[in-house]
Amino acid sequence: MPYDKKLNQTQIAQTNKYNVFRCLVREGPINRAAIAKRVDLSIPTVMVIVDDLFEKGMIKSAGKSETGVGKQPEILAIDPRRCFYVGVDIGRSTIRMVANNAIGAEIASMKEPTGDPFPEKQFIGYVQKRTLQFIRKLMKKNGDVLGAGFAMPALIEPGTGRVITAPDFGWRDIPLKDWLQKGIPCPVLVKNSTQALAVNETHSTRDGDHTTLCVNLGYGIGAAIISGGTLYDGTGGISGELGHCVVDRDGPLCKCGNSGCLEAVASGEAIARQARMIILHHARSKITELCGGDTSLIDAKMVFDAARAGDGISVKIVNSAARYIGMALSFAVNILDPDRVILCGGLAQNGNEFLEKIKSAMEDHLVSRENRNLNLSAGVFDEYSTAKGAAQVLFDTLWVNRELPI
Amino acid sequence: MPYDKKLNQTQIAQTNKYNVFRCLVREGPINRAAIAKRVDLSIPTVMVIVDDLFEKGMIKSAGKSETGVGKQPEILAIDPRRCFYVGVDIGRSTIRMVANNAIGAEIASMKEPTGDPFPEKQFIGYVQKRTLQFIRKLMKKNGDVLGAGFAMPALIEPGTGRVITAPDFGWRDIPLKDWLQKGIPCPVLVKNSTQALAVNETHSTRDGDHTTLCVNLGYGIGAAIISGGTLYDGTGGISGELGHCVVDRDGPLCKCGNSGCLEAVASGEAIARQARMIILHHARSKITELCGGDTSLIDAKMVFDAARAGDGISVKIVNSAARYIGMALSFAVNILDPDRVILCGGLAQNGNEFLEKIKSAMEDHLVSRENRNLNLSAGVFDEYSTAKGAAQVLFDTLWVNRELPI
Repeated sequence: MPYDKKLNQTQIAQTNKYNVFRCLVREGPINRAAIAKRVDLSIPTVMVIVDDLFEKGMIKSAGKSETGVGKQPEILAIDPRRCFYVGVDIGRSTIRMVANNAIGAEIASMKEPTGDPFPEKQFIGYVQKRTLQFIRKLMKKNGDVLGAGFAMPALIEPGTGRVITAPDFGWRDIPLKDWLQKGIPCPVLVKNSTQALAVNETHSTRDGDHTTLCVNLGYGIGAAIISGGTLYDGTGGISGELGHCVVDRDGPLCKCGNSGCLEAVASGEAIARQARMIILHHARSKITELCGGDTSLIDAKMVFDAARAGDGISVKIVNSAARYIGMALSFAVNILDPDRVILCGGLAQNGNEFLEKIKSAMEDHLVSRENRNLNLSAGVFDEYSTAKGAAQVLFDTLWVNRELPI
Repeated sequence: MPYDKKLNQTQIAQTNKYNVFRCLVREGPINRAAIAKRVDLSIPTVMVIVDDLFEKGMIKSAGKSETGVGKQPEILAIDPRRCFYVGVDIGRSTIRMVANNAIGAEIASMKEPTGDPFPEKQFIGYVQKRTLQFIRKLMKKNGDVLGAGFAMPALIEPGTGRVITAPDFGWRDIPLKDWLQKGIPCPVLVKNSTQALAVNETHSTRDGDHTTLCVNLGYGIGAAIISGGTLYDGTGGISGELGHCVVDRDGPLCKCGNSGCLEAVASGEAIARQARMIILHHARSKITELCGGDTSLIDAKMVFDAARAGDGISVKIVNSAARYIGMALSFAVNILDPDRVILCGGLAQNGNEFLEKIKSAMEDHLVSRENRNLNLSAGVFDEYSTAKGAAQVLFDTLWVNRELPI
């Protein structure tokens, strides 16, 4: 074991200040004595910290208490116009941006279409330009920008923020963080989209000792793990690859080069492909009607719609996907013993019946399921979820590294 | 997010003292100035800490330096006879015990046969009695006992040390830690055997940011995860169940009640069962000779021996096991992205060829394998490995909780 990290006075002072700040964020407007009680510090210590936060413009007076008798204590609140931070979801066809103020409240969101992801440098230059415009516009009324978190469906090397591969973009080995950082005048951070999504999904429940497996069931399938409030990264940025666990050794080839991966039999793409193939050989299906005879228009949503309308072929495809997803979830649950599984992404928006089928298939393959305390649920659907998560990862990183301007 | 844990002066003082202690353990005998340099403290601070450690009997003088001119500084060393701690591996037929002194050096080991694990209270009473005898004998020459770590092949509830289930023992819902603690006059801790084994395997390499998957391939199959130097527990003590991931949907029933679990097709028990079944129907196999015609004597070792001698049936069984183990490993590696996989237990002692087959099967099912930096190796075989790990978990826990007598 290494030596324990040396502690010092500065760390004590910083932790006290960060806790006072957090108390103002969470429980403000609030007076000095109440803060002292809440964060277990003396009133003089809180007074010194508050003076400093005043000086830095982070807080403002919010009047006097109106209860009690005698001298009324001053109430303090975070100044929401002092600073903000942004999150950017870099998608293949759209980039989505959100901004939060220091209290974590959303102050803006917008989306922009993108073009061809080639050449990469040009595409990233476009993302950078749009992000800068978004930031500059907000700076007029919302103070300093603390940083920008970017999320992308890619393998991201921890530490460097380099894209190892981004299959949807056809990218390989791109110094994404470095390229973004050069044109953006605040700290930049890059994360995998599913990881950002997971942080957003668990944002309000990260107190306590949970382990959450967040699975993104969309065109592809990925997962992220949050344990003890912390995003698990793996050693090389290639964790959470639930979509490439083999669930059917005799299954179809996957675009990763292996056979029978979950993604090859149960992703949105696989569901649509299966439907297309069957429709071409069987005339009778609700899907034929839904796609107006043009099988190239078939997508997973159409298959789910047809299944809900009782179409036999679609029901079979959907049930098969649920069984495979449940089996792959059982691998992750058997290995990790999480207490929460959150299913996100387009496929997870197909109602309770689909979720129950997944849950049942998962439980069929769990060991000691009677001893587990496992909750499986659908995530909150919001097209800005990934961007919000990216913003949150940025803020959490500034917090943990003690890099907030407080 | 919760409030950050409040820091205080006591923690600073404790961290300094623990680092000085660790320096003495790792680099002693050593003088005060060298300690100060190594742990980045002032010499006066080190002097105060050293005085305290002297007073507590943890260290002793080891003479004067013999180099240099002028006044020679005193050299200090941990007193190896001041205290010790023990680890106990509770096995179905044997309990194994080890004891380490404060420097972590082994000072004793012994094993004792056990009897019927029923009634549980009587069995645990026996373990307790033997542990106490072991401790008392050592106390005569080795000072105080710091604590006892116990490991058992069971699902252990984190925190309480309660056995949820112990299939090999036929136990269910036993307050193991409480029962052991009542008769043992030092802190007691209970862990799962594979977790203890993993701690022992990674003991010397826990510096730095590794994630290690340690898999116990024996009569059954289990795994443990060590990430960033810390044993991963899961939320309910049911993590690392690699043996119950489904690798063959059409495979045989497993004793857990599911079908096609890794354990049902590739554990020591499964290998022996397959051989027995085939031998009963096919006369010609090297195994028939090795077991002297009595198929009830067939075990996994016999199958591996026959395979090495070129026996066709045995080669098939071994290759099948390797393929399945490799596939299950790919699930864990795809999800966790470890940089090390260590294979322990009896099956892992069957030579490089078997390991290479497992590795090849694992790699066949990994996504982005060209981007992974993954080392797969066999663990160190030692019948006391689990007991040593149990002792180490105990010591680590006392360290992290700042409960050492320093």
